[in-house]
Amino acid sequence: MTQNTAEKTPVTLLGLGAMGTALARTWLAAGHPLTVWNRTPARAAALATEGARIAESAAAAVAANHLIIVCLLDDASVEEALAGTDLAGRDLVNLTTSTPAQARARAEWARQRGARYLDGGIMAVPPMIGVPEAGGYVFYSGSPELFERHRETLAVPAGTTYVGEDASFAALHDVALLSAMYGMFAGAAHAFALIRKEDIDPAALAPLLADWLVAMAPAVHQTADQLRSGDYTKGVVSTLAMQVAGTPTFLNTAEQQGVSPELLTPYFELMRRRLAEGSGEEDLTGVIDLLVR
Amino acid sequence: MTQNTAEKTPVTLLGLGAMGTALARTWLAAGHPLTVWNRTPARAAALATEGARIAESAAAAVAANHLIIVCLLDDASVEEALAGTDLAGRDLVNLTTSTPAQARARAEWARQRGARYLDGGIMAVPPMIGVPEAGGYVFYSGSPELFERHRETLAVPAGTTYVGEDASFAALHDVALLSAMYGMFAGAAHAFALIRKEDIDPAALAPLLADWLVAMAPAVHQTADQLRSGDYTKGVVSTLAMQVAGTPTFLNTAEQQGVSPELLTPYFELMRRRLAEGSGEEDLTGVIDLLVR
Ligand SMILES: NC(=O)c1ccc[n+]([C@@H]2O[C@H](COP(=O)([O-])OP(=O)(O)OC[C@H]3O[C@@H](n4cnc5c(N)ncnc54)[C@H](OP(=O)(O)O)[C@@H]3O)[C@@H](O)[C@H]2O)c1
Ligand SMILES: NC(=O)c1ccc[n+]([C@@H]2O[C@H](COP(=O)([O-])OP(=O)(O)OC[C@H]3O[C@@H](n4cnc5c(N)ncnc54)[C@H](OP(=O)(O)O)[C@@H]3O)[C@@H](O)[C@H]2O)c1
Repeated sequence: MTQNTAEKTPVTLLGLGAMGTALARTWLAAGHPLTVWNRTPARAAALATEGARIAESAAAAVAANHLIIVCLLDDASVEEALAGTDLAGRDLVNLTTSTPAQARARAEWARQRGARYLDGGIMAVPPMIGVPEAGGYVFYSGSPELFERHRETLAVPAGTTYVGEDASFAALHDVALLSAMYGMFAGAAHAFALIRKEDIDPAALAPLLADWLVAMAPAVHQTADQLRSGDYTKGVVSTLAMQVAGTPTFLNTAEQQGVSPELLTPYFELMRRRLAEGSGEEDLTGVIDLLVR
Repeated sequence: MTQNTAEKTPVTLLGLGAMGTALARTWLAAGHPLTVWNRTPARAAALATEGARIAESAAAAVAANHLIIVCLLDDASVEEALAGTDLAGRDLVNLTTSTPAQARARAEWARQRGARYLDGGIMAVPPMIGVPEAGGYVFYSGSPELFERHRETLAVPAGTTYVGEDASFAALHDVALLSAMYGMFAGAAHAFALIRKEDIDPAALAPLLADWLVAMAPAVHQTADQLRSGDYTKGVVSTLAMQVAGTPTFLNTAEQQGVSPELLTPYFELMRRRLAEGSGEEDLTGVIDLLVR
């Protein structure tokens, strides 16, 4: 395949950790002229042999191109790395994991320095970068012009999902999905703990568990529908009252198997509190209201 | 379609609650001679018009057929309903939700009365019964002879998954999968809570959330593999140390969005404890060991 680098947007990338390095390789492979900088210069050496230009400083890297992509450890390292750079007129894309508040503040900070700003939340691990079939993608929020203009370049390492002009939304979506994933992992940990002392192969439980979680995940559509309408009884099959009545079976089973119930009890406790408010005919959705202050 | 009832195994069903009634209809529709009993006789009336024979007592229902299926509220109601019945020589299938210990005790109780025993855990709600494409199924454990002999009859209302001769295993699998599901629901509740005050449509978050959970569910295969080998560093991509380092982003985001972290903190706390034991290079699997006493 001929790579016509003249047509490809030149990219500056700050940060060559595990993620930055994976990103860098995809732009090089796709024929984008790439300028890189890393605080510890040694990490850039390998990329130089693959065609990347090494900048001597963050300021030089920012000066080299119009599109600046940052993938550093955290928001504090972004502050530190960009301190002495001139961002005026630049398109700044920050793929560093941040909280929504950090992303919003960083967007304002960039605006004051004359840069357009796009925040990103990477829903992938490095081995998924540049592997479209792995299904990884990046949430983007902030400047819609910047996103439109660099859409193709941004799509090189992973899929792109734009979630709004509020720069904090990419981080919020990122954290929301990963939080839900930790909940699922906590539930799976409890499930594996329950069979730990039995003659049951974890590898026999795993496909049953995976299939069941996959089958139950679409329940979030009904939750969303209930949240929108405010009617938490809409389409309910197993009422909150029925489900609370079933919780002793889960707790007694944990007790019998010698498993701490600590990963289940907080959710059961919220179910119980919601039931006590007289919401027995509802679905589980009311628990969400109890979480929000 | 001609229904040759002469060839179909006659079934006795005790319990016509929401689940029992759904089960009953599928056997009637498939042409199985069906004898039913319910403590409150009124609930049986509709089924009589659909072809079921109504037994006057649980004892009469048990006397009527060789295959006895029980679907009552809980283990105590099974004890009560079967008290005055003669189970000698019967094939008893108990679809009542129980703990593993209750199932094991009930199997021994049935053995003492001369019955073969199979315990079931229903992974479906009543609307999924008799609807194969809904994907519901029943875990069975206990007598392999009973399961083999009645395999086809048992497959009428829902799919069947036999998980072992130990009668408690169906209940244990049932509870394990549902516990994991509650973990996933807890995670999803936290995710929806995070966007509650923002101008983000829950129905826009739902498909992203469902797809992400579906994509992450197969991680349980790696967990199983690590549990089998005892090597929790096997195939690790994001180490425990990296993930613990990321937890402040989740907790700070919850704080900023006014969301209680109570559904996340127990899992994070176990991650932190495992890290403190010097397991930073491992995957999250070590958390499971901390749950088991
Ligand atoms: N890895 C993943 O699985 C993954 C997944 C999704 C999102 N992310 C996010 O991607 C970002 C990068 O992750 P990573 O895995 O590449 O991390 P990493 O391997 O630990 O690399 C961290 C990078 O940040 C740089 N850095 C740290 N402090 C700095 C400072 N004060 N000034 C300048 N540079 C500094 C490091 O430079 P030195 O080489 O000089 O130390 C290095 O380039 C993080 O925000 C992470 O949350 C990672
Ligand atoms: N519904 C579901 O979504 C679902 C899903 C999976 C598993 N299950 C399990 O299936 C079983 C039945 O559930 P269901 O939804 O059908 O419950 P249900 O609608 O509440 O019906 C309960 C049944 O148990 C009978 N019963 C209660 N106490 C009794 C006693 N002391 N003696 C004799 N009969 C007694 C009731 O008889 P009366 O009519 O006389 O009250 C009724 O037939 C439960 O173990 C449940 O956990 C249900």
